[in-house]
Amino acid sequence: MPTPQPPPLASAERTTVQRVVGAATTAATDLLAVEAPLEISLGYGPANQRQTHTLAVTMRTPGHDAELVAGFLLSEGLIQQAADIGLIEHRADPRRPKERGNVIRAELTPGVPVALNRLERHFYTSSSCGVCGKTSIEAVHASSCPTPPPADSPRVAAALIHALPERQRAAQRVFEQTGGLHATALFSAAGELLLLREDVGRHNAFDKVVGAALLTCQLPLSQHIVLLSGRASFELVQKAAVAGVAILAAVGAPSSLAVEAAEEFGLTLLGFVRQERFNIYTHAQRITDH
Amino acid sequence: MPTPQPPPLASAERTTVQRVVGAATTAATDLLAVEAPLEISLGYGPANQRQTHTLAVTMRTPGHDAELVAGFLLSEGLIQQAADIGLIEHRADPRRPKERGNVIRAELTPGVPVALNRLERHFYTSSSCGVCGKTSIEAVHASSCPTPPPADSPRVAAALIHALPERQRAAQRVFEQTGGLHATALFSAAGELLLLREDVGRHNAFDKVVGAALLTCQLPLSQHIVLLSGRASFELVQKAAVAGVAILAAVGAPSSLAVEAAEEFGLTLLGFVRQERFNIYTHAQRITDH
Repeated sequence: MPTPQPPPLASAERTTVQRVVGAATTAATDLLAVEAPLEISLGYGPANQRQTHTLAVTMRTPGHDAELVAGFLLSEGLIQQAADIGLIEHRADPRRPKERGNVIRAELTPGVPVALNRLERHFYTSSSCGVCGKTSIEAVHASSCPTPPPADSPRVAAALIHALPERQRAAQRVFEQTGGLHATALFSAAGELLLLREDVGRHNAFDKVVGAALLTCQLPLSQHIVLLSGRASFELVQKAAVAGVAILAAVGAPSSLAVEAAEEFGLTLLGFVRQERFNIYTHAQRITDH
Repeated sequence: MPTPQPPPLASAERTTVQRVVGAATTAATDLLAVEAPLEISLGYGPANQRQTHTLAVTMRTPGHDAELVAGFLLSEGLIQQAADIGLIEHRADPRRPKERGNVIRAELTPGVPVALNRLERHFYTSSSCGVCGKTSIEAVHASSCPTPPPADSPRVAAALIHALPERQRAAQRVFEQTGGLHATALFSAAGELLLLREDVGRHNAFDKVVGAALLTCQLPLSQHIVLLSGRASFELVQKAAVAGVAILAAVGAPSSLAVEAAEEFGLTLLGFVRQERFNIYTHAQRITDH
């Protein structure tokens, strides 16, 4: 019998603020992006001898939690394909009512091997996070295997890239309300918006998109464009490489290591994509003038 | 004999890009914010029986690494005061020349007790990071002890707050060049800029400020204002609380959990501080009209 699923938690909530404009202060209401911990555990092992391991706690915006978990498992190299996941579901523990909706479990398909060393060191390396759990510099480079996209495709006109930020913003409803969410958008090579996910954490927004693509068998994203609402760090390029993304575009700036990694992994990396302008940092052959 | 210190690494580097403006593409150079891993290890134990533990690797912008480490140790509850640190220095391993400048060791003063469970779980919880190493939801709330600032001071005029973002930007030279760095600025209650640190990771920029304050015996920051160039997450509020910050102001939006934590820890939390406006989310008594 399936566990009853708790109702989804809200991704924005209302609060009362004192709004100061110049010298005047008035009471007002404001919408906040919800940030709440999600505890992720993993079930694994043969059918008659299952084990469970608490994998991590992420501070995330509720919504699309199963996609987040699927994307995380893939990025971290704990799974290779959708078929490796048997089930992802929220758990409700009656003894911990406050955590309702914030506890989720992924069950690996029986027989799928689990890299126990990854279970012990299942952390993000993140420039926006600061210190994380990787315990040697080498480990930073030892995540999942990247899936290099074909070197000569897709080919996308600059004019198509110029149009993407506006399409993303039009779809980004919660951001307009709270100003507090990062977005990741998935576009076809023809510029069609296929998917958009938002989160207080930019890595979470990315994982939600990759997880959604994984669960609907759309990986690798070798004929796609991914647009980030913020900056491009090393880790986001690494996640894009694992998902096989051909073109990674960021509204903000890339870091030095993001550019190095994109060069190495064969990704086209674009930065400062806004107002009919952008910079091409790597693999410029995929962007055409017309 | 002290280990020779490697020269400081650059915080920005030049790269060649294809710059697209409308339909025109030209070659140009662009400055990138440097993102590079810093491996942090900790020496501890009695003088005659020292032990070393690799604590973490952070993706950071080089510069002020010792302050970053000091702030990190404090935020994570591994130290309580400046005197707990005997030494922080870069290490140069001739067998690993590529890591030059990216390996650093903090030595605890002999006799300072070390919380070994913190050594095993020394991770940031971060909404901008995504999944991190905390392995239960309870652990998210079990960081260092906050130092609540006095409830009735400092008192700061709204006009003084309006002036801070411009003072921060004027000091933020690297940001203007790369667009890729977060900044944290420390101001006196009179609005004087005391310190500014930048990093690709906003948690790192914050830790550098706290570490600098710790190493110069300026903690707690109970008569200070800290201004963030971006958004305010739960973790940044938590770090501010450990440093005893009275007023935490963000140019961007706070998250729901950031507001909850600021309320609980006694901090005045301001958001959207820009263009002569801001919102007061918690403990409004510290902001006056005149």
